[in-house]
Amino acid sequence: MQLMEATGIREAFHNVRKHSEHICAPLETEDYVPQPVAFVSPPKWHLAHSTWFFETFILKPQVPDYRVYDPDFNYLFNSYYNNVGERTLRTDRGNVTRPTTQAVYAYRRYVDAQMDAFLEDLTDPEILALVELGLHHEQQHQELLITDIKYILGHNPLFPVYRKGQNMVDGRNTETGFLAIPEGIYDIGHHGEGFCFDNELGRHKVYLHDFEIAKGLVTNGEYIEFMEAGGYQDFNLWLDEGWSWVNQNHITAPMYWHLIDGEWHYFTLEGLQKADPEAILSHISFFEAAAFAQWKGMRLPTEFEWEIASANLDWGQRWEWTNSAYLPYPGFSKAPGAVGEYNGKFMVNQMVLRGASVATSPGHARKTYRNFFHTHERWQYTGIRLAR
Amino acid sequence: MQLMEATGIREAFHNVRKHSEHICAPLETEDYVPQPVAFVSPPKWHLAHSTWFFETFILKPQVPDYRVYDPDFNYLFNSYYNNVGERTLRTDRGNVTRPTTQAVYAYRRYVDAQMDAFLEDLTDPEILALVELGLHHEQQHQELLITDIKYILGHNPLFPVYRKGQNMVDGRNTETGFLAIPEGIYDIGHHGEGFCFDNELGRHKVYLHDFEIAKGLVTNGEYIEFMEAGGYQDFNLWLDEGWSWVNQNHITAPMYWHLIDGEWHYFTLEGLQKADPEAILSHISFFEAAAFAQWKGMRLPTEFEWEIASANLDWGQRWEWTNSAYLPYPGFSKAPGAVGEYNGKFMVNQMVLRGASVATSPGHARKTYRNFFHTHERWQYTGIRLAR
Amino acid sequence: MQLMEATGIREAFHNVRKHSEHICAPLETEDYVPQPVAFVSPPKWHLAHSTWFFETFILKPQVPDYRVYDPDFNYLFNSYYNNVGERTLRTDRGNVTRPTTQAVYAYRRYVDAQMDAFLEDLTDPEILALVELGLHHEQQHQELLITDIKYILGHNPLFPVYRKGQNMVDGRNTETGFLAIPEGIYDIGHHGEGFCFDNELGRHKVYLHDFEIAKGLVTNGEYIEFMEAGGYQDFNLWLDEGWSWVNQNHITAPMYWHLIDGEWHYFTLEGLQKADPEAILSHISFFEAAAFAQWKGMRLPTEFEWEIASANLDWGQRWEWTNSAYLPYPGFSKAPGAVGEYNGKFMVNQMVLRGASVATSPGHARKTYRNFFHTHERWQYTGIRLAR
Amino acid sequence: MQLMEATGIREAFHNVRKHSEHICAPLETEDYVPQPVAFVSPPKWHLAHSTWFFETFILKPQVPDYRVYDPDFNYLFNSYYNNVGERTLRTDRGNVTRPTTQAVYAYRRYVDAQMDAFLEDLTDPEILALVELGLHHEQQHQELLITDIKYILGHNPLFPVYRKGQNMVDGRNTETGFLAIPEGIYDIGHHGEGFCFDNELGRHKVYLHDFEIAKGLVTNGEYIEFMEAGGYQDFNLWLDEGWSWVNQNHITAPMYWHLIDGEWHYFTLEGLQKADPEAILSHISFFEAAAFAQWKGMRLPTEFEWEIASANLDWGQRWEWTNSAYLPYPGFSKAPGAVGEYNGKFMVNQMVLRGASVATSPGHARKTYRNFFHTHERWQYTGIRLAR
Repeated sequence: MQLMEATGIREAFHNVRKHSEHICAPLETEDYVPQPVAFVSPPKWHLAHSTWFFETFILKPQVPDYRVYDPDFNYLFNSYYNNVGERTLRTDRGNVTRPTTQAVYAYRRYVDAQMDAFLEDLTDPEILALVELGLHHEQQHQELLITDIKYILGHNPLFPVYRKGQNMVDGRNTETGFLAIPEGIYDIGHHGEGFCFDNELGRHKVYLHDFEIAKGLVTNGEYIEFMEAGGYQDFNLWLDEGWSWVNQNHITAPMYWHLIDGEWHYFTLEGLQKADPEAILSHISFFEAAAFAQWKGMRLPTEFEWEIASANLDWGQRWEWTNSAYLPYPGFSKAPGAVGEYNGKFMVNQMVLRGASVATSPGHARKTYRNFFHTHERWQYTGIRLAR
Repeated sequence: MQLMEATGIREAFHNVRKHSEHICAPLETEDYVPQPVAFVSPPKWHLAHSTWFFETFILKPQVPDYRVYDPDFNYLFNSYYNNVGERTLRTDRGNVTRPTTQAVYAYRRYVDAQMDAFLEDLTDPEILALVELGLHHEQQHQELLITDIKYILGHNPLFPVYRKGQNMVDGRNTETGFLAIPEGIYDIGHHGEGFCFDNELGRHKVYLHDFEIAKGLVTNGEYIEFMEAGGYQDFNLWLDEGWSWVNQNHITAPMYWHLIDGEWHYFTLEGLQKADPEAILSHISFFEAAAFAQWKGMRLPTEFEWEIASANLDWGQRWEWTNSAYLPYPGFSKAPGAVGEYNGKFMVNQMVLRGASVATSPGHARKTYRNFFHTHERWQYTGIRLAR
Repeated sequence: MQLMEATGIREAFHNVRKHSEHICAPLETEDYVPQPVAFVSPPKWHLAHSTWFFETFILKPQVPDYRVYDPDFNYLFNSYYNNVGERTLRTDRGNVTRPTTQAVYAYRRYVDAQMDAFLEDLTDPEILALVELGLHHEQQHQELLITDIKYILGHNPLFPVYRKGQNMVDGRNTETGFLAIPEGIYDIGHHGEGFCFDNELGRHKVYLHDFEIAKGLVTNGEYIEFMEAGGYQDFNLWLDEGWSWVNQNHITAPMYWHLIDGEWHYFTLEGLQKADPEAILSHISFFEAAAFAQWKGMRLPTEFEWEIASANLDWGQRWEWTNSAYLPYPGFSKAPGAVGEYNGKFMVNQMVLRGASVATSPGHARKTYRNFFHTHERWQYTGIRLAR
Repeated sequence: MQLMEATGIREAFHNVRKHSEHICAPLETEDYVPQPVAFVSPPKWHLAHSTWFFETFILKPQVPDYRVYDPDFNYLFNSYYNNVGERTLRTDRGNVTRPTTQAVYAYRRYVDAQMDAFLEDLTDPEILALVELGLHHEQQHQELLITDIKYILGHNPLFPVYRKGQNMVDGRNTETGFLAIPEGIYDIGHHGEGFCFDNELGRHKVYLHDFEIAKGLVTNGEYIEFMEAGGYQDFNLWLDEGWSWVNQNHITAPMYWHLIDGEWHYFTLEGLQKADPEAILSHISFFEAAAFAQWKGMRLPTEFEWEIASANLDWGQRWEWTNSAYLPYPGFSKAPGAVGEYNGKFMVNQMVLRGASVATSPGHARKTYRNFFHTHERWQYTGIRLAR
C-alpha cells in the first residue's frame, strides 16, 4: 500500500487526517457552510463525513464500549449509504449550520484520539484493509474539498484568493506528438499487492485494435482556437445531449472562464487571472471534450487504451475524459452491506476519467484508477487527451 | 415619529442599529450564512443590506467627499432596487461567504460612525424623513431577522435553541367574544404627524356594512380541533389554489409542527416544545386561515373592518391575515426613483395582514400599517382573527 | 331572464345548445383534440362537459329511471367539481382521444332529447333556475371555445383560417374623452329579476371618491407607441411579478403579435393580418395593462368605479382589466354541494375583468358580471380602459 | 438486402409504405393527434415524417423540376436533422392539428407516386442505398407507431381496444436453461452484403471471458415473484439513479400494469387483461432489468456476449436490455451532412438493446442490430435475458 509503505498505518492515518485540515486552513468560518449546487458539499460536511466513516465502520463495530460522539451525527454526515440509516437530503447540506465548524473539529479530535489508540495494536488484516479504505475515502474527499472550495470562492462576485502560490492550472505539457500502440490482447485491471477500489478488480483481457494516443493534453490556446472557430455554435460537432446542454445553459466557455474586455480570464485559487495559452486546459465537461475531439477529426481514447498506454505517458495533472462508459468489469460483484454501496451502484450514465489531477492527494494515484462523472460535470480538474 | 419622539434622531439611530445586533447576538458564525429558501435571507445579508441603505440613500448623496466603504457592496447588498444597479440573484445570497460576518460588522461600524457625525447637525426635514425611513426599513429587517433565524434553526435536525427565555409563541388571549361595529362611512389610512409608509397614505372614506369581529385570536387548541375534524382533508373548506397547495406540499399542520408519539409539538426559539392548546396559533398561511374560517362558518375581516375595529381590540401578537388583497389606496402614486420601488410594485397577488407580531420591533406598530405576504407564506408569526 | 324572456326555457335551451355546435362547425376533427396549455381545453371536451352538466345536475336527480349515457363520462368530463367524483387531471385532457368527436355529438343528441322531454312540463322554479344556470354555464364555455380554438389555430405554424368574415379584433372606439363621476355612496351588485351568478349577489354600498374614466379603450396604435417607447424594457413601469413574467417569458408584444419585416402583424380568426392601429387592442395580460397605465400616468379603474360608470360607457368588445382583486362581496356565502364550487373557491390571486367581449354569447353580458383571470393570462379578448 | 431480395426496390417500397398505413387502419382520426409525452409522437406525424424523408433526401435532390408538395412540411415534419432547417419543438407536435390526417395521407400518395416513377429506372447504387435507408427508417417508425399507439390508448381511462387478435404480449419461451460460451477472441459487427445502419459497421475483435446466457427470457410470473419479494422497496438491488427513478415516479410495477382487486392486470392492444404468468415480461426499464438481475444474483449480458450467443438463441420477441452503453465501434465515424446525424450523435447516456420485438417490422431484424434507449424508458416491448 502506497499510503503506508514507509510508515505504518498510524502514521499514514495521522498524515491523511492532517492533510484534510491543511486544505481547509485558509478558509474563513463562513466558507465551510454553503452548498451552492447539489454536487458541491460544504467543507464542514467533508470534514465531518470522513470522520463519521471511521467512527461508523471501525470504532463502533470494533472498539468494545465505544461511546459514540453524538448520535445525531450519523443522520447528518452519512452521504449515500442507505444501509446506515436515514440521510440528510443531499441538497439540504448547506443549510445545516449546526454543529458548527469548531464542533466538527472537536469531533475530528475525538475520533482521531480513539483511532490512534485503536491502531496501536491493530493487526487483523481485514480491519487494516478497512482502515486503509477509510484513508483512501478521505483522500477522495480531499480532492473534492479543493474543487468544492474553488466552486464556492469562484462563484463569489469578489473572486477571493484561496492561497497565494497555489494556482493549480498553470501546468504545461512536457511532451508532444503521438504514441502508437499495436493491436493485440492486453490485460486490464488492478494486480499486485497495493490498495485499489473494488471497481478496479477483476483483472481481465481486452482486445485492442491499433491506435495512437497524444503524449500531451489539450492546451488553453488550442481550446481558444476551437472557440474562435465557432465550436460552441456548430451543432455538427456535438452529441445531441451535449448540444441541448450548451443551449439550455448558455455555455460559451469552460467553467470559471470570463471574457473581460475581449480577453479570456479564468478564476484560479490565486484569484482571477489572464488565461495562459500554453497551460493545460481544465474544467471542461465530457460534452466539450467530445466536441473538441470531433472538431480535430480525432476522438477520445477508451479507458482500456489509456491504461495500456499510460506506462509511456506523462499523466497526473488532469483527470482525462475517456470515451468509456462507467460499467463493471467482468466478474465484478458488490460487496454485501454498506461498503458494497461504494462503487457499484453508480455504474450507469457516467463516463470514466483516467489519470489523476493536481488536486489528487499524494499516494492516491494509480494507472488502474477509475474515476467517473456525469457528462455535464466540470468543476473537477478535467482535461482532454486525443486519440486516433 | 414614535421612534424619535423622546430621543431625537441620533439616539433613535443608535437604538435601532444596536437592536439589530442584539437580535444576532446568540448566533454562531455559521448561522449568518445560509438561505434555505428564496424568501429567507442570511442574517449576514440583513445586517449588511440595512447598512447599505444608509450608505446609498443618505451618505453618498449628502456627505461631500464621502468615501464608499467598498464598491462591491452595492452589488452584493442591494435587495430589489432595480434603480440602483445590478443585483445578486435573490436565491444566490446563501452562497456568498465573503465578505465575512466580521467584515459586515466592520462595515456597520464604519457607516454608523459616518451617520453619527452626519446626524449631529441634520435639520433638513426631507433628509430627516429619509433617515427615519431607513430606520423603519431596518426595523422591518429586524422582524425578518427573527423569523429567518427561526427558519434556519427550525429546519436543522438538531432543533438548536436560539435564546433561553425567548419563546415567542406562548402568548394568550386576554379577551373573548365579539365586537359589533355598525354600518356607516369610515375614514381609512394614516393621518397625523407620525411616520408611515407610502402605502398607508391617501386617507379616504370607505363604506362598511354591519359586522362583528372576534376579540381574541384563534388558539392552538381550536386549530387542533380543526385538524382532528379532518380540516386538511376536506376540499370543500379550501380555496382551489389552497387545496392544490395542501396536496402538492403534503401540508398537514402549521409550519414548525411535528406529531411525535401522537402529540403535537412545535419548534420555538427555545427549542422543541409540546404545543400549548391555550396559546395563540401561529405560522399559518392565508390558505389555512381561510379554510379554518370556512370550517367555523365565519370569515376573515377585511383590512378596513380591522382598522376601524382595532381601537377596541387587543392586538400586536400576530400578524393577522385579512381577506383584503394588497392594492393601492385611492390616490396612491409611486415616488420617483429607488424609494418609489418600496411598496407600489408589490401590489398584486398578495394579501394584507394587519396588526403587528411578537417579532415586531418596539415603536414599529401602527393600526394603519399594511403588511402583505403571498397566500402560501407562513414563516412569519401569522394568526387568525375571525369575523362574521 | 334575458335568455328566456321572449322564448321560454325549451327554446332557450335549444338555441344555446345549437350555438355551441355552430361555433365548432368550421373545425376539422383534429382541431377538437389538443390541449396545448393547461388553461386551454379541447373543443371536444367543452362540448361534452357542458352536456355532462345537464345530465349530472338535472337529468340524473330529476328524471325517474334516467339511464346515464355512459358512466365513464362522469370521470372524463367533470371539470373542477370535486364533489362529483374523481376528475381527469386538467392537463391530461388533450390526450384523451376516445370518446371520439362523433361520440361526443351523439352524447349531446341523447341528452338534448332527454332534456327536451323533461323541459316540456317543467314548472318547479328551483329546477328552472338550475337549467338556466346550466345554459349560462354553457355560454361561458362558448366564449372559451372561441378563445381556445383561436389558441390552437394561432399556435399552428400554418396560421389556419377559422372562418372567413369572423375577424373579431377589427372593432373601433365610438367615443373619446373622459367621463367624470362625483364622490359619493353607490350601490354595487346585481338587483332585479334577471339571472346572475352567485358572485354578483349581495347588493351593497361602496364609497367612491371623484374619478374620471375613459370613454374609449386603448387602441393598437397607442400600444405600439408604448412598445416603441421601450415599455417592455423599463422596469419602473411594471409590477414586480409583471417584470419577472416579462423576462422569464421573453414577452415583447401582446399575444398573437408577430413582427414581420419591421411591421406588426397579429393572428386573427381570419388568419394572419397587419395590425390595425385604429382598432381596439386585445390579448394583453393584467401586467401589461398595469404597465401601460403607469406609462400613461394613469391607472386602471376599480370594478366598482367601472360598474357605476358603465351606464354611460360603450362597452362589450373587450373584457376590461380592473385593478380590483377577485374577492367576495359582503354577505357572500358558498351554496352547499357541487354548485357551490362554482365561483367562491376561485376568490384569491385573480383580478376582476368587467364588461364582455366580442366572444361573449348573445344575452350573456351584464354590467354586474364579474369575470376573473390570473394576472398573466391573455388568451381572452382582454383590453384596457384607463382611469384617473 | 433482406427487404429487397426477392422483390426489387419498387415492390419493397410499395410494401413498406403500405405496412405503415396498415398499422394505422384501426385508428380513429382523433388518435392520430396527441403527443402525451415527449418521446411519443402523434401517428399523423410518423406518417408524414417518413414521407418527408423520401421527399427531402431522394426526390428533391434527384428529380429535376421536382415540385415540393408543401414547403411548410419541411418545418413541420423534420425530426432531429439540424442540417435541414428549423424544427418544430419535439414537445409541440401534439398541438399541430393541421395539416389534417387526410392531408397527410394525400401527401403520402403524392410522394408515393413520384417515388414509384423515380424508382422505375433507378440503378445508381448510391441512390438505391439511400432509398433502402429510407425504407429501414420507415420500418423503425413502424415499430414506434405501434408502441406510441399503445401508449396513447393505454393511458386513456377507457382502455380502448386497438385490434382484436393483436395482443402482442402473449408469447412464451420455447427453451429454458443456459447456454455456455467459451473464452476467446470473437468478431463483432456487421459483415456481408445486406443492409445495416452505420452504428453496426466496423467489424472488429473483442475478447470475451467464459459466460453463460439464459435461453429463455424472464416471464411475468418470475417478475411477480420479484415484486412480491419487495423488489421495488429494497435499495440494495438498484442502481443509485434507478432508486431515485423508482421513488420520484412512484414505480411499483412494469408500465401498463394495474393491480385490480389484488390481481395484476395489464393493458394490451386487445384491451385490459389479466397478467399471464407464463408469458414473457415486457415494458420494463433498464433500471428494472438491472435490479431484477441483481435480485437473481446474476447480471445482464453485454451486447458482445449477446451477439456471439445469438446464433444459438431463440430471440425476436423483446428488445433485450444489455449492460453495454451505446458507444461507437472502433473506427466509427459520422457521415457528413444530415444522414450523418442518424446515429452518432446519440452515442452517450443510453444503453444498448439487442434482438428485435413483436413490433419490429418483417425483414427489419438482424443479430448485429443495435437499438438504444435511455435507462428509464419502457414503452417499447423490452425484456430481460439473464447472464452469469
